[in-house]
Amino acid sequence: MTKQYPSPTGRLLTVPINSGPIKLEPPASTFSSDNSAGAHPAVLEAIARANHGHALAYGNDPFTRRLEERFDELFGRPVSAHLVWNGTGGNVLALAALHRAGGAVVCTDSAHLHVDETAAPERIVGTKLIAVPHSAGKLTPECIDEQAAVLGNRHHAQPCTISITQVTEYGTVYSPAEVAALCEAAHRHGMRVHLDGARIANAVAALGGSLDALRSFTVDAGVDVVTFGGTKNGMLYGEAVVFLDPALAVGASYLHKQVTQLPSKMRFVAAQFNALLDDDLWIRNAQHANSMATLLHQSLADLVALGCVAPAANSLYPVLEPDVAEELQRWSFFYPWNMSTQQYRWMTAWDTTPEDVQRFAAGVRSAVSR
Amino acid sequence: MTKQYPSPTGRLLTVPINSGPIKLEPPASTFSSDNSAGAHPAVLEAIARANHGHALAYGNDPFTRRLEERFDELFGRPVSAHLVWNGTGGNVLALAALHRAGGAVVCTDSAHLHVDETAAPERIVGTKLIAVPHSAGKLTPECIDEQAAVLGNRHHAQPCTISITQVTEYGTVYSPAEVAALCEAAHRHGMRVHLDGARIANAVAALGGSLDALRSFTVDAGVDVVTFGGTKNGMLYGEAVVFLDPALAVGASYLHKQVTQLPSKMRFVAAQFNALLDDDLWIRNAQHANSMATLLHQSLADLVALGCVAPAANSLYPVLEPDVAEELQRWSFFYPWNMSTQQYRWMTAWDTTPEDVQRFAAGVRSAVSR
Amino acid sequence: MTKQYPSPTGRLLTVPINSGPIKLEPPASTFSSDNSAGAHPAVLEAIARANHGHALAYGNDPFTRRLEERFDELFGRPVSAHLVWNGTGGNVLALAALHRAGGAVVCTDSAHLHVDETAAPERIVGTKLIAVPHSAGKLTPECIDEQAAVLGNRHHAQPCTISITQVTEYGTVYSPAEVAALCEAAHRHGMRVHLDGARIANAVAALGGSLDALRSFTVDAGVDVVTFGGTKNGMLYGEAVVFLDPALAVGASYLHKQVTQLPSKMRFVAAQFNALLDDDLWIRNAQHANSMATLLHQSLADLVALGCVAPAANSLYPVLEPDVAEELQRWSFFYPWNMSTQQYRWMTAWDTTPEDVQRFAAGVRSAVSR
Amino acid sequence: MTKQYPSPTGRLLTVPINSGPIKLEPPASTFSSDNSAGAHPAVLEAIARANHGHALAYGNDPFTRRLEERFDELFGRPVSAHLVWNGTGGNVLALAALHRAGGAVVCTDSAHLHVDETAAPERIVGTKLIAVPHSAGKLTPECIDEQAAVLGNRHHAQPCTISITQVTEYGTVYSPAEVAALCEAAHRHGMRVHLDGARIANAVAALGGSLDALRSFTVDAGVDVVTFGGTKNGMLYGEAVVFLDPALAVGASYLHKQVTQLPSKMRFVAAQFNALLDDDLWIRNAQHANSMATLLHQSLADLVALGCVAPAANSLYPVLEPDVAEELQRWSFFYPWNMSTQQYRWMTAWDTTPEDVQRFAAGVRSAVSR
Repeated sequence: MTKQYPSPTGRLLTVPINSGPIKLEPPASTFSSDNSAGAHPAVLEAIARANHGHALAYGNDPFTRRLEERFDELFGRPVSAHLVWNGTGGNVLALAALHRAGGAVVCTDSAHLHVDETAAPERIVGTKLIAVPHSAGKLTPECIDEQAAVLGNRHHAQPCTISITQVTEYGTVYSPAEVAALCEAAHRHGMRVHLDGARIANAVAALGGSLDALRSFTVDAGVDVVTFGGTKNGMLYGEAVVFLDPALAVGASYLHKQVTQLPSKMRFVAAQFNALLDDDLWIRNAQHANSMATLLHQSLADLVALGCVAPAANSLYPVLEPDVAEELQRWSFFYPWNMSTQQYRWMTAWDTTPEDVQRFAAGVRSAVSR
Repeated sequence: MTKQYPSPTGRLLTVPINSGPIKLEPPASTFSSDNSAGAHPAVLEAIARANHGHALAYGNDPFTRRLEERFDELFGRPVSAHLVWNGTGGNVLALAALHRAGGAVVCTDSAHLHVDETAAPERIVGTKLIAVPHSAGKLTPECIDEQAAVLGNRHHAQPCTISITQVTEYGTVYSPAEVAALCEAAHRHGMRVHLDGARIANAVAALGGSLDALRSFTVDAGVDVVTFGGTKNGMLYGEAVVFLDPALAVGASYLHKQVTQLPSKMRFVAAQFNALLDDDLWIRNAQHANSMATLLHQSLADLVALGCVAPAANSLYPVLEPDVAEELQRWSFFYPWNMSTQQYRWMTAWDTTPEDVQRFAAGVRSAVSR
Repeated sequence: MTKQYPSPTGRLLTVPINSGPIKLEPPASTFSSDNSAGAHPAVLEAIARANHGHALAYGNDPFTRRLEERFDELFGRPVSAHLVWNGTGGNVLALAALHRAGGAVVCTDSAHLHVDETAAPERIVGTKLIAVPHSAGKLTPECIDEQAAVLGNRHHAQPCTISITQVTEYGTVYSPAEVAALCEAAHRHGMRVHLDGARIANAVAALGGSLDALRSFTVDAGVDVVTFGGTKNGMLYGEAVVFLDPALAVGASYLHKQVTQLPSKMRFVAAQFNALLDDDLWIRNAQHANSMATLLHQSLADLVALGCVAPAANSLYPVLEPDVAEELQRWSFFYPWNMSTQQYRWMTAWDTTPEDVQRFAAGVRSAVSR
Repeated sequence: MTKQYPSPTGRLLTVPINSGPIKLEPPASTFSSDNSAGAHPAVLEAIARANHGHALAYGNDPFTRRLEERFDELFGRPVSAHLVWNGTGGNVLALAALHRAGGAVVCTDSAHLHVDETAAPERIVGTKLIAVPHSAGKLTPECIDEQAAVLGNRHHAQPCTISITQVTEYGTVYSPAEVAALCEAAHRHGMRVHLDGARIANAVAALGGSLDALRSFTVDAGVDVVTFGGTKNGMLYGEAVVFLDPALAVGASYLHKQVTQLPSKMRFVAAQFNALLDDDLWIRNAQHANSMATLLHQSLADLVALGCVAPAANSLYPVLEPDVAEELQRWSFFYPWNMSTQQYRWMTAWDTTPEDVQRFAAGVRSAVSR
């Protein structure tokens, strides 16, 4: 039996309808999220090494100071980095620091901060989110110009910050030129640009895996503030809010505490980041995750009905018939993504193994081909 | 040379004035804060053990489920526990869940949430804090009755929550009867009671070190919500907001995410708490810290000019002449506490050693007796 | 010269391009907004009558008490009415009273509270606004069902309130059955319904002009809270937030003051409302405004290029070529409404005269026919 | 029978205890509040005169433009004036405009914004209020220096605004030198000064009744923003937030709307203010009110048990035995003020007559002398 659905690109896909449980061995790790992965051994070792004696709380420790220097080195200029607990907290801190009277944040309607943060920006920052339709997860400069039309009219919230996600929520990666064009448009209107980099390492890996790659879509493109992710790339917990222009960080120190994102035993966040930065582990972790997504895509490339495009980073967005999806999820869990297009999400992590991919691909093949 | 200052109890103290650096070996660990200590080895081991394979994020994991059961056992009734990053975040979540239209929180003017949280409750909860003078760090039932006078008058913020700290910010411990009297007064006026238990283990240790001790000043006394501390008692990070009456937790699940306090890899918070609960490690850690404070007090008991009372838990509040204090802080750092009374704070931790105490006491003796 | 634009209904309109200033006498009153009108003489007289001697502030006066009774009579049941300064304030009070933890408000993307209130609901209520595409200014029950899909998922803001505008921002009027269907959908999902009635009198007039008409789309349809407009219908200032179910007003008394919407000399707001309610002046004012819009529509009915549909209440939304619009606006000001469809807004008021209509129509005819 | 109470100045007062209802004719107007008074006839006439034809809403009208010029003239320099509905709203707008990241407002513990605004500043501005003990209603420069000690420490809310009330909540009037000293201290620490001038006209009257008097404690003293009261001085409603340094008003335009304080038919607020400014009516109204308070004080000067000091402006704070107070309140209502000192408040208004004073004094005399 089959059924037809539009693919993400608009094409009609003929999707088989499932009938029965999958008998194969599931993968050891699911493809549900890079949040489901644990911590890299080097990260745990770094914590253990940092766990000797006392260190002053709240960042007055040598681990944090060393990390601050390394962020300067990473971005090739003096930046202001603030270590936080989690991505939602990091975004809230960044947006609060960039907020202006009557201000609003422009983002896509697929942005994590619009969809998945339970109105934290609205409640804590007191900002409006102006969510514009995404294009493959991306924002366009035209949207910014359009939103700028209300500037100066006090009856409307004033767009003061543009927030983009890199890697996007649809697994795509902005090119440096795309980010630069967004920054140019934003700055032309007096707005600032925030980059939610929960998966920034995967974007760096996708764009060549070098420091130049990192800088190409951040400092060089004109981004003002980055939420620099750690958790999804092999840390236990921890992200950094990095003000690429330190002048924008005035007040961030107080907001850091006020929005409840100031870790007391901060040395342990810093130690984890330091471990990731040693020998480019953060990039290698991301390269591995990306390559596992590519492997999964290749393993299923003949199943055109899935409508998967070759992944830019570490996720695929297959179109699945609900019964097939349910059967597969019961076997090895993953999340639905956009029910209006029947898209689900398969995501790899720093610890996904080729064997995991092989097993998962076999299960998918078994489910969709019946 | 000497100078005179009022002690915390009002008595005039004659305090010697210092002249010159301390030549002794400082303690390996400072007496600055239990926040300066690292993590207990058993905690790190538990994290390492939990770090195998994938687990769903945000608490859908077996470690968190097990911990939830253990909190029920701890309090002897079904409770609703929410794991959070840090104390400020836990307090904000608790107060937000208890907030009512036009509501205010009554606390002492020494309360951490009033003094040390950079207006997080005001900004995030949108509440007024009504700070009343503390009595040795404690709130009294009379204060509650007095504040209740504005109930029903819409021109005044409406006290809806009483927040007390156990162990208090002045190192004192509420007796179960004192907490019960506060709860009785609060409930009589339709208010709820929050207990900020950043150092709840030290209070349990001080009150006998049993589960009964824990229950005596929480569930049995009528407390509604507890912020149950982990960080200061040997965890890397992590606290729990425990609604002793689960009916009050309606909405807390959403607030948990909204106030940015929902850890993604929650299994690692749960694993740490589970390690602390194994074999009463949480109580033993606190008993040790308390005993080290007692040892420090005994070692300096003859220096009556310090004005230290025998510690109820793990901190002393000596009166020091500024020059002496500065000299000592330069040698082994600790914090000022109340400059109007010249009080400083010496705090022990789960990892303070008798040798640390011995060395620190020697340094103090050397500084104040010159 | 001509140009083509899509009309609001999708049809292509051929629009003439203007060339030169309008030589005719402009109307005494513009068609810019019912906000531009003054106060009805009876309203001023009522204020003068109330201006004798002292009256306790904040509603403890006989004028307010009388009005409260009249609101009960109006809705045919005991309601809880709160007098406020303005519409934005009234909406904020209503939404704050209906807010729940993690809550969100669902409205159309043309809703005044989403577009024209400078993020007041987000900042003051701390809520997310979920703006769904409007259908001729209206919300549909399907939207509510769709938004309800996230209920129970703590990563998403939880729709707890549906807010509709009657008369809508596009001059259309919900039928009682339409409102009832929305209320049914909302209540089925545990949500509440707020009706922004800045122009509620015009809706009542459009639906027959009786008390039954008022009740048909409010109490009878299941609406929970109404912002009952006065300013646009002949008052100097003042609106009422009417909780049709008084049980929902718990806390509203405190919020009333907290959101800065509690008038001190409240007797003067009450006196104005009392004047409007005398002899159905509020309905007669609205009927007049509506009839003037109909007259304007009829006067220009042959100019099909304007694309105006017969008005349900007191506004028309013509499609105008920008040069023509600019010329007309310079002559007698009105507002643009939706620049993506080239729509402008012509609005009548309680004091618009047939002569105003005649003159304005002549000017329009002169501008578009050249 | 008599009883003893401490007077506001600490002196013990012997207060007679009442026994029985007052038989005299009560005054036509109560001494409850200047909020209880109506509007001055000239104000109503100005509204009637402004009520001709249409005027664009939200301040785009000639009445508002004229008033803006007059505020410049009043303060002798270009200022930025924003018309608002009420005092709480004006204060919230001013404090929001001056807010900084992590900021706090320092005020006295008797400040209206701390005591009587139901946490509006906390909820809407997101600020902490740091309430310090008042000295006869006043703040002292020492308090500012003391609060400045936490500047730069991110664990504490950062005092960024000093808010004083003139006339104070205890009827006293800051001298120009006192305000200048406060401003000097505030500015030295990088803080701004807000003056809540709900009764600014009464202060001007008290200090000589000239424009120079107004400027002496505002622009000349260094105040940054003034809430300029109208309601209590003979308007129906309306206050102005005047930024004496217009550079501080950046963003205020958007906040004006966002905090729900932007009147749509603004011409009617402007017309009222214009009427008050004509021929110094605002000063004459205040002079009259002040003189009536003086008359009341003189009429009762021999009743030393009342403990009233000669009024600086338009209120007295008698010490009354509760039974006497209750009896008097039943006869002609007024408010309790500070129950810990048994103080009540008697307040005159622009429309209090000598006969009102005579009757009220007779009643008081009758009640306390029995």
